[in-house]
Amino acid sequence: MTNATLTIAIDAMGGDAGPAATLPGAARALAAAPDLAFLLVGDELRIARYLARLPALAGASTVLHTDKAISPGDKPSAALRNGEGTSMRLALEAVADGRAAAAVSGGNTGALMALAKSVLRTLPGIHRPAIASIFPALRGQTIMLDLGANVLVEAEHLVQFALLGALFAQAHTGKTLPSIGLLNVGSEPGKGPDHVRMAGQILAQLPLPGRYKGFVEGHDITGGVVDVVVCDGYAGNIALKTAEGVSSLTGRLFREALTGDPLSALGAALAFLGLRRFKRRVDPRLYNGGVFLGLGGLAVKSHGGSDALGFSTAVGLAAELARARYVQQVAEGLGKLAHAEG
Amino acid sequence: MTNATLTIAIDAMGGDAGPAATLPGAARALAAAPDLAFLLVGDELRIARYLARLPALAGASTVLHTDKAISPGDKPSAALRNGEGTSMRLALEAVADGRAAAAVSGGNTGALMALAKSVLRTLPGIHRPAIASIFPALRGQTIMLDLGANVLVEAEHLVQFALLGALFAQAHTGKTLPSIGLLNVGSEPGKGPDHVRMAGQILAQLPLPGRYKGFVEGHDITGGVVDVVVCDGYAGNIALKTAEGVSSLTGRLFREALTGDPLSALGAALAFLGLRRFKRRVDPRLYNGGVFLGLGGLAVKSHGGSDALGFSTAVGLAAELARARYVQQVAEGLGKLAHAEG
Repeated sequence: MTNATLTIAIDAMGGDAGPAATLPGAARALAAAPDLAFLLVGDELRIARYLARLPALAGASTVLHTDKAISPGDKPSAALRNGEGTSMRLALEAVADGRAAAAVSGGNTGALMALAKSVLRTLPGIHRPAIASIFPALRGQTIMLDLGANVLVEAEHLVQFALLGALFAQAHTGKTLPSIGLLNVGSEPGKGPDHVRMAGQILAQLPLPGRYKGFVEGHDITGGVVDVVVCDGYAGNIALKTAEGVSSLTGRLFREALTGDPLSALGAALAFLGLRRFKRRVDPRLYNGGVFLGLGGLAVKSHGGSDALGFSTAVGLAAELARARYVQQVAEGLGKLAHAEG
Repeated sequence: MTNATLTIAIDAMGGDAGPAATLPGAARALAAAPDLAFLLVGDELRIARYLARLPALAGASTVLHTDKAISPGDKPSAALRNGEGTSMRLALEAVADGRAAAAVSGGNTGALMALAKSVLRTLPGIHRPAIASIFPALRGQTIMLDLGANVLVEAEHLVQFALLGALFAQAHTGKTLPSIGLLNVGSEPGKGPDHVRMAGQILAQLPLPGRYKGFVEGHDITGGVVDVVVCDGYAGNIALKTAEGVSSLTGRLFREALTGDPLSALGAALAFLGLRRFKRRVDPRLYNGGVFLGLGGLAVKSHGGSDALGFSTAVGLAAELARARYVQQVAEGLGKLAHAEG
């Protein structure tokens, strides 16, 4: 590994499929971004079996052996107590001591957040870390946070989420002043719960690395009205899972409809180009990755059920944020906010 | 009108299209349920013009003239102050004094809720009225409430919403013990905000007209896991609008994909039967109607942009609840709960 490479630590054992998804996923990410290098953490025998078939990945990787892994059912408290030496924790430790620029894991979210907070620490000045993801939208994409790290928050937390989200959007879209909306039950200033209304008042006055556009509503997440949608983890988690449910229902009913009679089945076969375009545009694997923001290092959670393509998206996000020096950007942004607040 | 009829008061002027949607909508509802009669409230000249082309509706209707109407932009406070004699208020007054079994309006939601609370009053013992709607689901349909009448609620309000929703589900599905879930950010007992966790504890012990199944998540709304999903108006409104946004995005991308190349367009033409089945299954007009629950009379809000088909769905819901003697059922249910709570 030379200085030109960007090393991503991979929890090779995390996720439903373990190395069967994480290693081909890392290989895909490498093919798309040859400057990447990997620290593959997990069972070296199982990892070696996959690397034998992925020579490019093998050439860009170092393996860190452990036979311990966090289980899908492990509670955050158990992960903190017994996580020492697990593939998830070792990947985070590599970020903490500078051997890797970011860690990616498909392991359980609660355990990953607990370990990430413990190992990477919350950045000085950040009250609560948040989880952000990217959603497809009518125009472009939308970044939304928090998606569930913090159920109950106060206005000041939402304000920090706006900073964290705007800097993520800068890194992801290249826009210098991404637009920011605050998720609410209506767009009029008097609407919504106290913490949201108060956050709106503060955001309207702060020098953020983005333009604050006021309240947005649930349909604006996919409407592409703003680059960043800020919300508490209660609303964000419910919106995220509702969106997943509607997508899943629509897909299921659609498949049933197009296989329900021979003519429709023939039509669907003829329309394969259009259907493929559609699938690519809404493929959840291309939006995979819950990014943990506000910590002293980068950690990305890949969906536990994701395959290699989905895992490679999460790795790509981690690399994107590492290249943008996201953590340093947040530290600087916090300094400017503190200065503005006097 | 004989005793066998069920009279629905129609705010003929409400909604974007006014009588052009409400009157053909009422006619459709009448064709589906010949026991209906209508009190059509609004401008008699404009109403007469439509009735001339809708003889069946004309034969089943009485017209109550007014040239006053609530505007789409009227604030709830303005509607309360100046609503006297408007088509919306007169329709609600007809329910209050027994001339109609329910009122249906496509007018603005805030004004309708404010006037409905003022004219129909909240049922004794009910802390807060709620707005409920029906969602398509993988298995059957799901009733969800509250969708935005109450942003901030306490556990006891959620408990009452469970009662209101279960009785709605009884009327709509015919099930004697519909299943009830409480919307949360996870299904484990310790998850979520205080008011949701406390409501869960209370619901587990009460003799409801339904079976309480514990916490459900956003994807369960369309998953069809329970008949009724209970939530506060903050989460409910955001979930509802997120679902609308995802549906709208999916539909748009899908149309673009199927018109993007000639072969796909041909395929889509051949698949018309399947596509029609799909559209019918998710047609928002077939799920139109926000039902106001917990009041001393029935009021249903039809989507402002709905056409005749959508308006007829809202009228059908109103009739369904009136036939089930919903308001009396709630009063009796409250009595049983009060008895159980000691």
